[in-house]
Amino acid sequence: MSTRDKILDAAAEVIAERGLARATTKAIAAAAGYSEATLYKHFDSKTELFTAVLVERSPGDLSGALARLRRPESLDDHAAALTDVAAAAVDFYRQGFPMAASLFAEPELLRAHRADLERLGGGPHLAVAAVAAFLDECRARGEVAHGINVDAAAALLMGACFQRAFLSHFNGPDDDAGTTRAFAASITATLIAGMRRN
Amino acid sequence: MSTRDKILDAAAEVIAERGLARATTKAIAAAAGYSEATLYKHFDSKTELFTAVLVERSPGDLSGALARLRRPESLDDHAAALTDVAAAAVDFYRQGFPMAASLFAEPELLRAHRADLERLGGGPHLAVAAVAAFLDECRARGEVAHGINVDAAAALLMGACFQRAFLSHFNGPDDDAGTTRAFAASITATLIAGMRRN
Repeated sequence: MSTRDKILDAAAEVIAERGLARATTKAIAAAAGYSEATLYKHFDSKTELFTAVLVERSPGDLSGALARLRRPESLDDHAAALTDVAAAAVDFYRQGFPMAASLFAEPELLRAHRADLERLGGGPHLAVAAVAAFLDECRARGEVAHGINVDAAAALLMGACFQRAFLSHFNGPDDDAGTTRAFAASITATLIAGMRRN
Repeated sequence: MSTRDKILDAAAEVIAERGLARATTKAIAAAAGYSEATLYKHFDSKTELFTAVLVERSPGDLSGALARLRRPESLDDHAAALTDVAAAAVDFYRQGFPMAASLFAEPELLRAHRADLERLGGGPHLAVAAVAAFLDECRARGEVAHGINVDAAAALLMGACFQRAFLSHFNGPDDDAGTTRAFAASITATLIAGMRRN
């Protein structure tokens, strides 16, 4: 395992144990068996490390699922691809919630994280924007309704995943993979079909 | 203004200033000009007080908008009623986010809050359930598509509002009332119309 991977694993563990605010780079370096200097060779800042943990140590492969959206497919495949994205998003958001909560509980930390994300060109709105861009391409190819508001559709799909992750944390216990998949399939199908009586 | 209202106003202020974890009943009672004993005459627990602040001091009237769903109306009015709910939900969730974040950052506080909510029959899943119940009645009256999954539709609508509130906190600044209303209208219309090419 690379040094970078060992640091990411240690960071994920320390964050899970102590919460983000108390997960110091000192503690993370010690848990990985390295010096803080080594940690900072691989990550410019605590935010960059935390963001890498969130993106690379998430159980659902949200980046991968979003990347697969970039291939043109038939509408049936679109539904499957969007279901993949939704299922990965629930897992990703579920993993990210305690980190986001720690950020919100510490205004200074939130400001620093936000500034770092801006510098890195990242942020929580990007996954929603990626889904909207995909739907926009589908619309241009005539594969979904011409009049569709792609930003609203993306907000509905990803928002449902986001709240699902919150509710599973709040009410516990976590959904298993099958339940998450069924939820993802049901919101995707409902969004495609709409509620209007035909 | 009643004693209860004065305590709620003081609690909202102290929570906004200090965060939930540091908003003690002692500080809230002092800010309201009462003793802690008086505070506990009106609220059984800190959770009950916090829940009352969230529900009764939220800028959007989510409870009112949900209550209005209980009147049968035509589908056009359904869209207006759902838009009202969505706009109020964005405001409600936006107000609730810092409180929810404080809860998640303090596992002990979250457990206590969850237990209290269970006892009081409350919880963050109830607004989603209320929208689903409304759509179920619409379906029974033949006013929306027969095959619609009402739980999925409610999860989409309320989830989009929930994530919108999060993103406005994260990326700041807050949306104004007109922007929130336009967002609420666009997600409602998109959910009703669906994405399928007709």
